Amino acid sequence: MRGTAKNRAMPDSSLPAWRFVTFEETIVETFPNKSHFWYNRPDMVRDTNVLFVRCKMKPWQAHKFHHHPNMEEILYVLSGTAEQWVERECRIMKPGDSLYLPAGLIHGTYNNSAEELDFLAVLAPAKSEGPGTVDVSEEEPWKSLRP
Amino acid sequence: MRGTAKNRAMPDSSLPAWRFVTFEETIVETFPNKSHFWYNRPDMVRDTNVLFVRCKMKPWQAHKFHHHPNMEEILYVLSGTAEQWVERECRIMKPGDSLYLPAGLIHGTYNNSAEELDFLAVLAPAKSEGPGTVDVSEEEPWKSLRP
Repeated sequence: MRGTAKNRAMPDSSLPAWRFVTFEETIVETFPNKSHFWYNRPDMVRDTNVLFVRCKMKPWQAHKFHHHPNMEEILYVLSGTAEQWVERECRIMKPGDSLYLPAGLIHGTYNNSAEELDFLAVLAPAKSEGPGTVDVSEEEPWKSLRP
Repeated sequence: MRGTAKNRAMPDSSLPAWRFVTFEETIVETFPNKSHFWYNRPDMVRDTNVLFVRCKMKPWQAHKFHHHPNMEEILYVLSGTAEQWVERECRIMKPGDSLYLPAGLIHGTYNNSAEELDFLAVLAPAKSEGPGTVDVSEEEPWKSLRP
């Protein structure tokens, strides 16, 4: 039966089964360095297993080295430029570029420019045990990796 | 053990664990009415459970009423305008608008404009038994629903 598997909560029938979300209707989280605009997560629809969020990162700001122990992730750049690290590799990502990351792989996104970075992130599964994100930016070698 | 669960193939170690994909590096499928540009699917990386594809739909073309029996889906409009149907409801989607759909729900995307429609689609899980898509556009009430 659906909804009883491990890591899968019972569907919340008070939430809509499906949902249109304009940018203005997203759920906003504001941080000093960036804002998150949530289009889809388990508290927005009845029974999803995918997170979908848009992130606007201010110039010269970052989401420093971290990993998601249980979630795979896809990034997609809408506008701006990302200095994107995966383990010890760095690539510059432009609009239309994407990155797939399996769960547990260390990565970081740095907006090393004067322009806002606007990108989408997909994470799955939406529900799992333990922390969603683990910060490793103060640990070596990650702390000293960027020139 | 990972990889042995139902609907989950063994990871293919000949594929990369993670992958950067520029638009030029996507895998392209060309149809008369649209083109698909694949950023992520199980034959591109070792062990993903998410499909990520960009679709460019020509003016006055459509992906008529259909459903995905086993996959939830998220749509996100990059440019152009979508006349988006979910069951009997229709909304006009603009850039920055999104739609979440659970598995099995009937929907259709119509580019009822002279401009190309460019959008992203996320589908999960990537691997399941049976057909990925079931076309119902020749069945009532869907066949006669649009004015």
